[in-house]
Amino acid sequence: MLERVESLMREYVKELSNDEIYKLFEALPHGKRLRAKLVLKIAGESDDAVRLAAIIEMIHAASLLHDDVIDDAMVRRGVASLNATEGSKQAVMMGDILYSKGFEELVGFERRIAKAVASAVTQLSIGEMMDVRLSKSFQPDSDAYMQMVYQKTAALIEATASSAAMLAGKEAHIYGVYGRNLGIAFQIVDDILDITQSSEQLGKPAMHDYEEGKTTLPYIYLYEVLDEDGKRRLKSLHGKKLSIDEKEWIKSQMQECGALQKAYLYARELGDEAVSLMRGAGEDSLAEIVTAMIERDF
Amino acid sequence: MLERVESLMREYVKELSNDEIYKLFEALPHGKRLRAKLVLKIAGESDDAVRLAAIIEMIHAASLLHDDVIDDAMVRRGVASLNATEGSKQAVMMGDILYSKGFEELVGFERRIAKAVASAVTQLSIGEMMDVRLSKSFQPDSDAYMQMVYQKTAALIEATASSAAMLAGKEAHIYGVYGRNLGIAFQIVDDILDITQSSEQLGKPAMHDYEEGKTTLPYIYLYEVLDEDGKRRLKSLHGKKLSIDEKEWIKSQMQECGALQKAYLYARELGDEAVSLMRGAGEDSLAEIVTAMIERDF
Repeated sequence: MLERVESLMREYVKELSNDEIYKLFEALPHGKRLRAKLVLKIAGESDDAVRLAAIIEMIHAASLLHDDVIDDAMVRRGVASLNATEGSKQAVMMGDILYSKGFEELVGFERRIAKAVASAVTQLSIGEMMDVRLSKSFQPDSDAYMQMVYQKTAALIEATASSAAMLAGKEAHIYGVYGRNLGIAFQIVDDILDITQSSEQLGKPAMHDYEEGKTTLPYIYLYEVLDEDGKRRLKSLHGKKLSIDEKEWIKSQMQECGALQKAYLYARELGDEAVSLMRGAGEDSLAEIVTAMIERDF
Repeated sequence: MLERVESLMREYVKELSNDEIYKLFEALPHGKRLRAKLVLKIAGESDDAVRLAAIIEMIHAASLLHDDVIDDAMVRRGVASLNATEGSKQAVMMGDILYSKGFEELVGFERRIAKAVASAVTQLSIGEMMDVRLSKSFQPDSDAYMQMVYQKTAALIEATASSAAMLAGKEAHIYGVYGRNLGIAFQIVDDILDITQSSEQLGKPAMHDYEEGKTTLPYIYLYEVLDEDGKRRLKSLHGKKLSIDEKEWIKSQMQECGALQKAYLYARELGDEAVSLMRGAGEDSLAEIVTAMIERDF
């Protein structure tokens, strides 16, 4: 079924009648297609579900193209990003094209479905700006961080799940909560892995988030329990290239005070709520997606 | 009435609950609001017309933000562009936010209205990429140029007019043709003024289009009639800073061979068709918009 989604995305891009755009699209890495899988699992394997899945994946791909431009990210899913190979202007334009084609197709759906997805894209774009702002200095406010994670990452997954539920005549709200929790937990796990995994496992430098200025949850939790000297030291390391010793200090402090564990337990709590909602709805395979995601690489 | 459109745009941006975004929005120049005026003139002064006008102006503002990033334009409407003052990343993000909020509100309209506007944005974003590609080398194909102008500039004006007609229960097709012709003629007149006006009148360097690599219609028409030496010389001047002598040579050649006149007559022909369509529909003030636009500064 995922193959039908891929093929419809190609079809949508072909409709633009532009070889250059088609080639750029074909060169994009596919990723896990988590959003498409969610739509198909929730809404079943109808033509409409395939359409919705293809549209949401196009919108997601557009957001990643712009995200990489904003972050100067040169690598995406292990391969050179479009902004690295073609320049950031091409990446901006290609993102605009995928966004707009996605929206154009989205308006074919009933209004509340289109509205749910479109609102999530607004949240996503605001979240991107929040992320940039929060990364400018050391930022120890966990509420601001969680709000940004919701907007930038979880809102579209929430809308994916709730819009698929609308399509299938299922209860949109509980699927929305499921998607929201899945999205937030996913990001927290990502933030933890950035600290605990090696560069080889990550396919990018370890602890790159903090070097880039992102004060993720484990850093915030660590900061809360450090003494004044420790707080000063942690802040002084923010947003710069870290030495091996500095990385070791951060990691050992986090392990000692339980910051990593605390972040993990928070992700797990969100995940557990999502699992029990889905078990209650008889959606075992949706519950398993959460469990697999939470437990990846721990 | 235009004040109600301005105020609704501010309302929409306020709904995003983010001071940074609101400030950036407030700092954007307003422009002529041609699209809003068209909606109000065609659809009348209803609440729905004000909403549609505000949405289309937000989408248009988003497209200009990205356009300035792509073109490295430092000035927009006589003031420093957002990418010049805040950096191109902020301009990309702000464009994404205005686009997505615009789309989010657009889905509140009936499907064919939303579809018309959304499809135009796809055309616009493809047109942007076409423009960049065509500007990479001397490009003497007038069909390719006109196709790009339609996509990048006229498609949204066409959709503005046709969607406003749908809202008012008027015949969408003729208003679409009106908007399309208005948009194309507008761009051709702009292309001519870039050659004939002084830097002071333009508020930017004269003949900047050709220096930037844009082979606009008068250049294409000139190329068609030049002898081999002339063709070589014109091509050799493409995409580089022009001296006063070089500018003089181009302008005098264009005047001599009638390239400017030919481009103007083409714009006028499109304009006349739009005028007669509107006179036929009893829409005199829409006809006058075309006439004023065609005759500006000649």
